[in-house]
Amino acid sequence: MKIPPVKGTRDFYPPEMAVRNFIVDGWKKVSLRNGFEEYDGPIFEYLKMFQIKSGDEIVEQLFSLTDRGGRDLALRPEITPTLARMVNQRINALPRPIKWFSVPRLFRAERPQKGRLREFFQWNIDIIGTDDVLADAEIIFTTIDYLRQVGLTSEDVKVKMSSRRLLAAVLRTIGICDAALEPLYALLDKKTKLPEGTFRALLAQQVPDSEVAEKIEAFMDVKKISQIKNVVGLDDDVDAAVDELAMVHRFLREDMEVGEYCKFDPSIVRGLAYYTGVVFEVHAQEGELRAICGGGRYDNLLCDLGGPSISATGMGMGDCVLEILLRKKGLVEKELQRQGLDFFVACVPGITFDDQDGLVKSTSEDEVVRLTTQLRKKGLCADFSYRSVSLGKQLKQASERNAGTCIIIGEEFKDDKIAVKDMTTGEQELLGYEEFLSNLGIGREEK
Amino acid sequence: MKIPPVKGTRDFYPPEMAVRNFIVDGWKKVSLRNGFEEYDGPIFEYLKMFQIKSGDEIVEQLFSLTDRGGRDLALRPEITPTLARMVNQRINALPRPIKWFSVPRLFRAERPQKGRLREFFQWNIDIIGTDDVLADAEIIFTTIDYLRQVGLTSEDVKVKMSSRRLLAAVLRTIGICDAALEPLYALLDKKTKLPEGTFRALLAQQVPDSEVAEKIEAFMDVKKISQIKNVVGLDDDVDAAVDELAMVHRFLREDMEVGEYCKFDPSIVRGLAYYTGVVFEVHAQEGELRAICGGGRYDNLLCDLGGPSISATGMGMGDCVLEILLRKKGLVEKELQRQGLDFFVACVPGITFDDQDGLVKSTSEDEVVRLTTQLRKKGLCADFSYRSVSLGKQLKQASERNAGTCIIIGEEFKDDKIAVKDMTTGEQELLGYEEFLSNLGIGREEK
Repeated sequence: MKIPPVKGTRDFYPPEMAVRNFIVDGWKKVSLRNGFEEYDGPIFEYLKMFQIKSGDEIVEQLFSLTDRGGRDLALRPEITPTLARMVNQRINALPRPIKWFSVPRLFRAERPQKGRLREFFQWNIDIIGTDDVLADAEIIFTTIDYLRQVGLTSEDVKVKMSSRRLLAAVLRTIGICDAALEPLYALLDKKTKLPEGTFRALLAQQVPDSEVAEKIEAFMDVKKISQIKNVVGLDDDVDAAVDELAMVHRFLREDMEVGEYCKFDPSIVRGLAYYTGVVFEVHAQEGELRAICGGGRYDNLLCDLGGPSISATGMGMGDCVLEILLRKKGLVEKELQRQGLDFFVACVPGITFDDQDGLVKSTSEDEVVRLTTQLRKKGLCADFSYRSVSLGKQLKQASERNAGTCIIIGEEFKDDKIAVKDMTTGEQELLGYEEFLSNLGIGREEK
Repeated sequence: MKIPPVKGTRDFYPPEMAVRNFIVDGWKKVSLRNGFEEYDGPIFEYLKMFQIKSGDEIVEQLFSLTDRGGRDLALRPEITPTLARMVNQRINALPRPIKWFSVPRLFRAERPQKGRLREFFQWNIDIIGTDDVLADAEIIFTTIDYLRQVGLTSEDVKVKMSSRRLLAAVLRTIGICDAALEPLYALLDKKTKLPEGTFRALLAQQVPDSEVAEKIEAFMDVKKISQIKNVVGLDDDVDAAVDELAMVHRFLREDMEVGEYCKFDPSIVRGLAYYTGVVFEVHAQEGELRAICGGGRYDNLLCDLGGPSISATGMGMGDCVLEILLRKKGLVEKELQRQGLDFFVACVPGITFDDQDGLVKSTSEDEVVRLTTQLRKKGLCADFSYRSVSLGKQLKQASERNAGTCIIIGEEFKDDKIAVKDMTTGEQELLGYEEFLSNLGIGREEK
C-alpha cells in the first residue's frame, strides 16, 4: 500500500532540503547580524487566540484540532499572535526594546497554488516597545540586507512603502468616516490584484460619492510623496504622516545606504487589520509574482491579546514566493554547487597490510574507516562506501556525493603513501600518509 | 484576556531558543561530518500511515485532525514512517546506500512529565540499503560523536547494545514459539522500568513454564557476550548473532576508537515492533533518567509501507531528556555565555558634527546608525539603542546584550576618534576611526 503526502505539503529530499536551508539559514544569519534574537513558540495554540486578531482570510484557513481534553486548538497560521502572547506573559521582565526574530513553520488550509502552500516557512522580525521610526527603518533595512545577501539587486526587487497613518489621514480629509476605514483598507489592499472595473464597482459600493471615490483612486496612483498635496490639499495630519514616512526614507537612504531599493507607493495597504503606521511590501520588478514579503507598524496587537498598549513594528517573509524568484534569477543553483563532502575515502578492495612480524595488521577497508574517523574527528565532512565495491564504483559515489577530495588507499599504503585526488580538476598525487594527516592538523598522538 | 500556551508545549524565549539551537545545530553538524544528508517531511501526514507500523503506544497518542475535504490527518509522532514513504516514492532514482538525517519536530498527545512533552525535537539518522554491520557501527559512532562533541564522556553515558536477532535466537533455543516473540519483546523491553515482582508475574502469564522463564531472566542479566552460552548452550543461530554483535563492537573499538562508550546489555530490547537486528540505547550512568536515545536495524519497514524489502538501520534522539542531562552536567551554560553581539554602538547623545563649511553634517545618533550599518555589512552582529537615552543606559544595554565590544561616539569624533571598550576586561581606548574601520577590512570606498 503506497501512501502519498498530503496535498499542499512538501517532501524535502536532500536537494530540496538544501534549498530550504539556504533560505532559512540566510534569514537567521541576517537577523543575528542586525541585532535580533531568535524565539519560537509551539506549532499549535488555542484556537481562540487566532480568532481574536488574525485577518478573516487567515481565520477561515485554520487547521483546527481537538486534544483529548476536548480543547479546541489550531496549527499556527502566523507567529505574531504567539509573539504577542509570549511578550505579554513576561512584559515586566523583558528589557526593551524587544528585538526578536523567528523562522516558524506555518499552516494555512488554503487551495494550493503557485507560491502558496498549506505548509510553509516564514521569516519574522519584530521590534517591540519603541515608536521611534528608526525601528521601522531598521526592519526595512534588515529585509533589504537579506535580499542583497542572496544576490537580489535593486533592479530585481523594490520595497514599496506607504503608511496606514497617512492613508487614514488622507481618507479622513476627503470625507471618509472612521467606521468606514477598516473595510475600505481591505478593498484598497486588493486594488492591484483586481481588474480595474471590478475594483471600481466595489469601491462605489463602499464610497457612493463618486467625487470622493475618484480622489481615493487619484491618491492610490500618486508616484511621489510631494504630489499628495495636489490630491488632498493641505492637512496637518497628512503632513505629519508624510514627515514620518520621509524620515524613514531618509534613514534608509543616508545612514543605511539602501535608498535605491526603496520607493513610495500609496497602493500598499496590507490586508491585516492590525497595522497602524508605516507599511511596506517587497515586489519583484518583473513578472506577476505575489509580494515577497510585507510588514509595518502595529500598535494594538499586544493590547488586544490582554497586554498593555505597546508600539511594535515587524516584517514577515514566506519561503514559497521567494524560492520561485531565487530560482528564476539562478541564485539557488550557484549556492547548491558549493555543498558536498570534504573528503570521500576509497580503497583498492581486499589488500592486507602486515605489521613488522608479518602478521596481518589491517585491511584496506579497515584503513578507510580509520582515516574517515580521523577526518570526522577534525570536524571535516567525510564518508566512504560500504562492502567491497570496485574502486571505480567508489569513485563514482565520491562524485555523486560532490566530494571535494577523494583519498585512495591502495598498494602504496604499504609504503605509507596515499593517493589524493582533487575531484574538481581530476588531478591525483601520491602523498605520505603522515604528511597528509599533519597538514590537516591530525597529529601522531591523535591517530 | 490573557491566553496561556497549550499544556505540554514550550515557549522558546531567546535563552531557551539558544539552548534548542545549541542542541539542534550540534545534531546537524555531527550528521554532516559523518556523511549524512538532511531531509524532512511535512508536519502532518495521512492518519492511516502512522496506524500501519508505529507502536501501539504511539498510535494511541496521535494528534489527529481533519482537513476541509474530510481527510483524516495526524501530526507526526515520529519521522520514520515519513522516511519510508519518501524512500519508497523514489526507490529507483535514489543512489544507495541512502544515508540521511533529519531533526523533525514531533507531537505526542501524552501526559506531560519530566523528559516527555507533547511537542519535541528528535534527531534521526538512518542508513538504508545495506545490511553491512559497518552501517550499524556507523550509526552508533555518529551518536557517540555527538555526545562527545557536547562534552559527555564515557563516564557520563554508555551505549548499551544488544540484538533482536540474538534475542530471537536465544528465545527460540529455549523453547519460545515464533508467534509468542513479539508480545514477549514488549514485556522484556519494560523489565528495567517495572518492579521485579510485577515483571515476574507478567512474564509468568506469557511464559507459564517456570524453567523457561528463569532462563529468560538469566539471559537478561548476562554481563558479557561470552557468558551467553552458559545460559542457552550451543546454537548456530545464537553464534551467528553473537558474531555479528562482536563485529559491530570491534569496529567501534578498533577502527572508530570509541570502545570505552560501548557495552553489551541483553536487557536492551526497544519497544517498537519494527526492529530486526542490532539494537541499542544510550543511558546516563547516574540518575533515573529515561534513555537519551535508541536505535537499531529494521528490515521490513519500507516493505510494510508498500515498498521493496530493504535493510535499514537508524537512531532517534529526543531533545528533552538530553537537555536535562546537559544542564545537570553544566554543559549548556558554558555554551550560552559565548553567544552575544560582536559590537554595540553607543554615543554621547545630541552632539552635532560640522562639515568644512561649518554646516551640520550629522548628529552622534546618525553616526551610530552609519557605523552599525558598516559593521553589519561585514557580517558582524551589531546593534544600538533607539532614542536619545543616556550613555549609561546604552552601556547597560550593551552589557545585557552580551556585546563583546562597545564603541562610543563622543566629542572625540570631531577629531575622527572613537572610544572602543572591551566589555570583558572593561578596558577602553581611543582609536582613529579610519584605523578602526580598516582593521575590520572596511575600506574608505565602502563607507
